[in-house]
Amino acid sequence: MELYLIRHGIAAERGTYENDDERPLIEVGRKKTHKVARRFSKIGVRFDVILTSPFLRARQTAQILKDAGLSATIEECASLAPDGNLQTWIQGFPWDNLQRLALVGHQPDLGNWAELLVWGVAREKLILKKAGAIGLKLPETFNPVGQSELFLLTSPKWLL
Amino acid sequence: MELYLIRHGIAAERGTYENDDERPLIEVGRKKTHKVARRFSKIGVRFDVILTSPFLRARQTAQILKDAGLSATIEECASLAPDGNLQTWIQGFPWDNLQRLALVGHQPDLGNWAELLVWGVAREKLILKKAGAIGLKLPETFNPVGQSELFLLTSPKWLL
Repeated sequence: MELYLIRHGIAAERGTYENDDERPLIEVGRKKTHKVARRFSKIGVRFDVILTSPFLRARQTAQILKDAGLSATIEECASLAPDGNLQTWIQGFPWDNLQRLALVGHQPDLGNWAELLVWGVAREKLILKKAGAIGLKLPETFNPVGQSELFLLTSPKWLL
Repeated sequence: MELYLIRHGIAAERGTYENDDERPLIEVGRKKTHKVARRFSKIGVRFDVILTSPFLRARQTAQILKDAGLSATIEECASLAPDGNLQTWIQGFPWDNLQRLALVGHQPDLGNWAELLVWGVAREKLILKKAGAIGLKLPETFNPVGQSELFLLTSPKWLL
């Protein structure tokens, strides 16, 4: 199974909205995210489902991916909010019959999740830019922590 | 400093030449490598120098990168041949005043080198396809082993 971790696009600056979860994507963030989504589409990547952080900037990013035809379904996932717990999510998620899954969320969480899945420890060694993506190959058998492989890490500029 | 590890393109099959180091790139390998080189060029990546394994398929890959304008200089480096030693290379290489360096070589060595630089241990967890690239950010201070960050891992298909 392939798992893609996609960081939300460039959003309004921190402090410009009363609640951090209400910051929307700004124009340049929308444009870059659109271009990334088009590249995914052109390569033929399709997701069974896109799970997104409940924060607005992540939900808007997920919607752009959906509108580009990458998936028919978006679901909000509380574990993808900042400081969400990977193990909680893994244990609660219905994994059956999935081929390709996208998670839209935040840094440093997504990088930490990727490191935990691949190396079993999170040391914040992955540089994941906004609208950038990580691609992981998960093992057939549970548990994926420390058992996955990394095949993609890219900022948007390589995909534009 | 940025260090790019680039795997040679698709070459003639193992066993079709008497010596493994004489296997050349085949047409599809040349084409994909050209496209990867053009993407690097378009993004504005330029290398101070391209170091290559002495094996023909690596030298030909390095030449394609040079011909695309990515560097004025190619140097052969014995440590980049299969089973080359990272520590030997690090200690022997003149690091002064370099901003961006490319190494052209083989798997699983390049993936192992990247893991050693970032996490300090090599567990063969990075999937690096032929003509694919790894991008690392090295610290200002010696020694880079276990102190570097990963910002790029991609197969050619994302760059075509």
